[in-house]
Amino acid sequence: MIRFESDYTEGAHERIMKRLLETNEEQTPGYGMDEHCEKARAYIRKACHAENADVHFLVGGTQTNTTIIASILRPHQGAVAAITGHISVHETGAIEAIGHKVLTLPSDDGKIQAEQVKELYDAHWNDVNHEHMVQPGLVYISHPTENGTTYSKSELEALSKVCRECGLPLVMDGARLGYGLASKGNDLSVADIARLCDVFYIGGTKIGALFGEAVVIINDALKKDFRYFIKQNGGMLAKGRLLGIQFETLFEDGLYYEISKHAVDMAIMIREAFAKKGFSFRYDSTTNQQFPILPDNVLMELSKKYSYSFWEKVDAAHSAVRFCTSWATKKKNVEILIKDIEALQ
Amino acid sequence: MIRFESDYTEGAHERIMKRLLETNEEQTPGYGMDEHCEKARAYIRKACHAENADVHFLVGGTQTNTTIIASILRPHQGAVAAITGHISVHETGAIEAIGHKVLTLPSDDGKIQAEQVKELYDAHWNDVNHEHMVQPGLVYISHPTENGTTYSKSELEALSKVCRECGLPLVMDGARLGYGLASKGNDLSVADIARLCDVFYIGGTKIGALFGEAVVIINDALKKDFRYFIKQNGGMLAKGRLLGIQFETLFEDGLYYEISKHAVDMAIMIREAFAKKGFSFRYDSTTNQQFPILPDNVLMELSKKYSYSFWEKVDAAHSAVRFCTSWATKKKNVEILIKDIEALQ
Amino acid sequence: MIRFESDYTEGAHERIMKRLLETNEEQTPGYGMDEHCEKARAYIRKACHAENADVHFLVGGTQTNTTIIASILRPHQGAVAAITGHISVHETGAIEAIGHKVLTLPSDDGKIQAEQVKELYDAHWNDVNHEHMVQPGLVYISHPTENGTTYSKSELEALSKVCRECGLPLVMDGARLGYGLASKGNDLSVADIARLCDVFYIGGTKIGALFGEAVVIINDALKKDFRYFIKQNGGMLAKGRLLGIQFETLFEDGLYYEISKHAVDMAIMIREAFAKKGFSFRYDSTTNQQFPILPDNVLMELSKKYSYSFWEKVDAAHSAVRFCTSWATKKKNVEILIKDIEALQ
Amino acid sequence: MIRFESDYTEGAHERIMKRLLETNEEQTPGYGMDEHCEKARAYIRKACHAENADVHFLVGGTQTNTTIIASILRPHQGAVAAITGHISVHETGAIEAIGHKVLTLPSDDGKIQAEQVKELYDAHWNDVNHEHMVQPGLVYISHPTENGTTYSKSELEALSKVCRECGLPLVMDGARLGYGLASKGNDLSVADIARLCDVFYIGGTKIGALFGEAVVIINDALKKDFRYFIKQNGGMLAKGRLLGIQFETLFEDGLYYEISKHAVDMAIMIREAFAKKGFSFRYDSTTNQQFPILPDNVLMELSKKYSYSFWEKVDAAHSAVRFCTSWATKKKNVEILIKDIEALQ
Repeated sequence: MIRFESDYTEGAHERIMKRLLETNEEQTPGYGMDEHCEKARAYIRKACHAENADVHFLVGGTQTNTTIIASILRPHQGAVAAITGHISVHETGAIEAIGHKVLTLPSDDGKIQAEQVKELYDAHWNDVNHEHMVQPGLVYISHPTENGTTYSKSELEALSKVCRECGLPLVMDGARLGYGLASKGNDLSVADIARLCDVFYIGGTKIGALFGEAVVIINDALKKDFRYFIKQNGGMLAKGRLLGIQFETLFEDGLYYEISKHAVDMAIMIREAFAKKGFSFRYDSTTNQQFPILPDNVLMELSKKYSYSFWEKVDAAHSAVRFCTSWATKKKNVEILIKDIEALQ
Repeated sequence: MIRFESDYTEGAHERIMKRLLETNEEQTPGYGMDEHCEKARAYIRKACHAENADVHFLVGGTQTNTTIIASILRPHQGAVAAITGHISVHETGAIEAIGHKVLTLPSDDGKIQAEQVKELYDAHWNDVNHEHMVQPGLVYISHPTENGTTYSKSELEALSKVCRECGLPLVMDGARLGYGLASKGNDLSVADIARLCDVFYIGGTKIGALFGEAVVIINDALKKDFRYFIKQNGGMLAKGRLLGIQFETLFEDGLYYEISKHAVDMAIMIREAFAKKGFSFRYDSTTNQQFPILPDNVLMELSKKYSYSFWEKVDAAHSAVRFCTSWATKKKNVEILIKDIEALQ
Repeated sequence: MIRFESDYTEGAHERIMKRLLETNEEQTPGYGMDEHCEKARAYIRKACHAENADVHFLVGGTQTNTTIIASILRPHQGAVAAITGHISVHETGAIEAIGHKVLTLPSDDGKIQAEQVKELYDAHWNDVNHEHMVQPGLVYISHPTENGTTYSKSELEALSKVCRECGLPLVMDGARLGYGLASKGNDLSVADIARLCDVFYIGGTKIGALFGEAVVIINDALKKDFRYFIKQNGGMLAKGRLLGIQFETLFEDGLYYEISKHAVDMAIMIREAFAKKGFSFRYDSTTNQQFPILPDNVLMELSKKYSYSFWEKVDAAHSAVRFCTSWATKKKNVEILIKDIEALQ
Repeated sequence: MIRFESDYTEGAHERIMKRLLETNEEQTPGYGMDEHCEKARAYIRKACHAENADVHFLVGGTQTNTTIIASILRPHQGAVAAITGHISVHETGAIEAIGHKVLTLPSDDGKIQAEQVKELYDAHWNDVNHEHMVQPGLVYISHPTENGTTYSKSELEALSKVCRECGLPLVMDGARLGYGLASKGNDLSVADIARLCDVFYIGGTKIGALFGEAVVIINDALKKDFRYFIKQNGGMLAKGRLLGIQFETLFEDGLYYEISKHAVDMAIMIREAFAKKGFSFRYDSTTNQQFPILPDNVLMELSKKYSYSFWEKVDAAHSAVRFCTSWATKKKNVEILIKDIEALQ
């Protein structure tokens, strides 16, 4: 079985494993106060062109989203997000569990646009009974989205502008950030993102690390007491150095970007193979997740040798599925898959 | 600087690192549904003599306590714990954050006794206005405690009996469980603990692993939907195999017990050196944490070369401090420390 | 200004005021343990043909919905409701504030149907990653709905059947229950509702009382410890007798039904006047709330003399608005309004 | 049976009942936006010498405490209170249910002192691991306390000073405020309280009203969006006018103070009768609650004719009990009780 079902099917990049081994016997203070974390923070601040940013390391995505949102909202406020957003659908109500409604905006491709945010904001404040409704308190986006799509610089600038006008912090879930940065046609740098968002995170779990997400807080007003929130939400790793070592390795010389590019290259190869064969796609993805729409007999054929994720029924005889690549995807395996796609009847 | 400040100053046991390396390129399903997790579960069930136990792997202690307690209590119920308990003091109110009061019992050494639980239970139910007060909903203990002390088999049997009579699930925080099992005079086995508790966990973070806690649910009534709780509380590790691989290594042939014993041996050597020098101890600890009461000048002297944790002021010129050993403590370093203790003026 | 904006613009029915005065100097125990509450409970149980029902009195609707839902759901579960439902839109996220997602179903008229519930239930349990999503834990409906529409007996029987098959308690918000029972074509009795729902409440605030909602718990499994939930959610009125006295008066001889009928009669008169004039309606309401779609010039004309609630823009020149009647609506005022409607150009 | 068990055994003061009757048919907007509420707000601002204060009306004490605290604290913060405080003991964990720990200070008489607050504050911030602990976020006091005791002006000034130095809002639960203001030796005015506290409330439920608490927010920083919190916590009364009418009546010409004084006079008569008979008291109360320590045979004798509240066992043969008076206590009944006390063997 060759696995394309997700981007977390292997361990970590070999350079990270090597570094973990080399440092294994070092003695360090706990909870992210060690020198590896400090170095990793410095690399990330530099990449962001944000010398004053606060950088914190957490273990996984749900925890990171919950911690960020808990630290920003007051109890009567909600997080504005696409109806397909990870916090809206796939975190077992973790945001509601800490007391907040997810205020959803319609979206077919996972993205939301500036005008939608403005409209929701105005609808709230123009309602005479607005205090009977959840007040929008922040805007949450994923880049890339759950659907593999990405924001252009102008889209993100427009969103950022509206958010600042409305006093709504803009929060970016970057669980797959590297794959967005490496996507064809991307015109956003990490520094742009740092300029346009109030808080965002750089995903490690899906891009080279065993686990780990690096939260970057740009907006000074949102920095206060964040470590309390990490601890309260169960994200304060005792051996915080493990996170520092991994992000140090990913960011000291561009490894993060390099392995992200590999994943996207592999995904595009797969995409092109499906396209050449005449299949269409559920989303117009330029990143490491591809969503071909395939007939049932093709799916049955492919599932003998490959794992992928079921996405949704498209019609009686077709489904959209997800093929994921990652930093760890072997070109050899992609070539085998492509050959099998080409051979499909 | 030689570090004795905590039991999480190093990475992981070399056999764990080796296994992580060997398995690094394996492709596995995520979220703890892989074969390594399955094997680890089997080893743990066997150690517990509990073939029907549910075993789940989480990343850290606060998260584990929160997830277990969230899964057991209804909103009007609280967790009974020692006033010094980890959930009561050192988790930034994580239990309150999910809506529950910690109902504290007085304790000087970190332990609570069966009669205290019975008394609190009776006081609640005998009050005519009991519905105006938080109802006791479970009993939380740590073994060993934060203070290095342990429960005897008879103490735990008495607690278990009262809890069952009162309908209160007994939950054991075993973040340092191995060090309790390896302590001198210990008469409890893991199987005893499984027999007497409703839910407990076996700590990996402080005993050989990079991170990880293995939750064992014995009571059938508490098993339902536990994976939802893991996810909601941010503890569902994408690469769950990392937890499986580590616990597999710790439990396949007794490594967990062996390295726990080493830590306790090292701690007792340190204890004896302090004792021989005439110092007394804040708690009567037989485990890997030792709490000597030392004069300020001695502390200043030792702090030049060793890290330890400040515990509490005892009088104007003395403080209790904590020296921790672990699976990673080098005998050589302990011997250097002992020599320095012996040389104290 | 004659007010039709809501059904809570006056105080209480004169018989209730009289009874409150007569009993004012009585000394009673607090918190709903007095004889008036006992009598009111007995009347309500009788009306429900449910001698074993638990009956509790709370002050207002948001509080009642929150308390009921808090008492039923576990933290990973959500309340299934119409997207227009009161708990979904108009309670400032009170359900999320206690940790639960509202799982919304599309609805144009405020009602949801049995098949929608079944579909959502199946979609959840058929998803391989269901533990990453909020589990449906109960079904919440309003009768009448926010839109003045009502369930027929066969609709409610179908819903109840699906809920029982799926193990989902069926909860009915009856803030305007009397107006539903009094609506033309209604074939549901309170006893039917008690037979088909697990928990429901009988609204007093909008039907004759100063305030107050009577919660009826039919399902034995949901009765335990409910008074703790009332207290925790701030609904345990010190002078609980006030609620007892009011519901005693409403239910001792049918006053509740009688005044509900008056309100509906008044509403239908208004409806017919608008209809006769050729206006259409946003919802097909048979109860005390009517939603005519009116051109802006008509609205401007009417607003000089009458208050109503804006509902929604229908097109550039028309809006749907709400005219409410209640137990307190004076026939004389309705006749004045009708004359003015008839005189509209 | 003559009831002295609590201060909420009757309905409302006759002038309030009269006013409710007179206004019963008035049509008003809902949710506290009517003219009666506006007038009541003006009277209260005037009494407070605080023209800029925000005044909101809620129904009961638990709800009011929860709403105020929810509006002030961030999730990692707790409310500092006496260990005997109402929020700590008698609200079924309502504060924990909204996510916050109650950080308790020892107290025998229900009061806490400035130095205790300073000490707790320093202990938190001096701990190197303070982010592992709940951060103190506000100070909650009751005046009078649950034990009938009161703060002097100098005590409250000291508390206020420490709170301001530490950045901790000072919140006063004034469920029985009138009885404190009317107590012998009191040197605090409502205006003093408004000057020294950040938020406080004036209790109506126990002093003349059917129900109702008037929240006064002095600190501008705490005013924002408070109505959202009222709604979310279930305290937004549909017929808000009922609260306005009651507080209007209580504060238009001093009725609140007058009836408070009556209650305290009655309580002191009872106190003196017990004292004259040689009984001692559990607390040194100058307000409407008195806590004599009585032998079991006396209690049995009194309970034939009078209701009182059991407080606590003092020794094998004696208990402290509570006798409450209120605005409604009839002098005739107090004289009967006194005669019976004098006749005790």
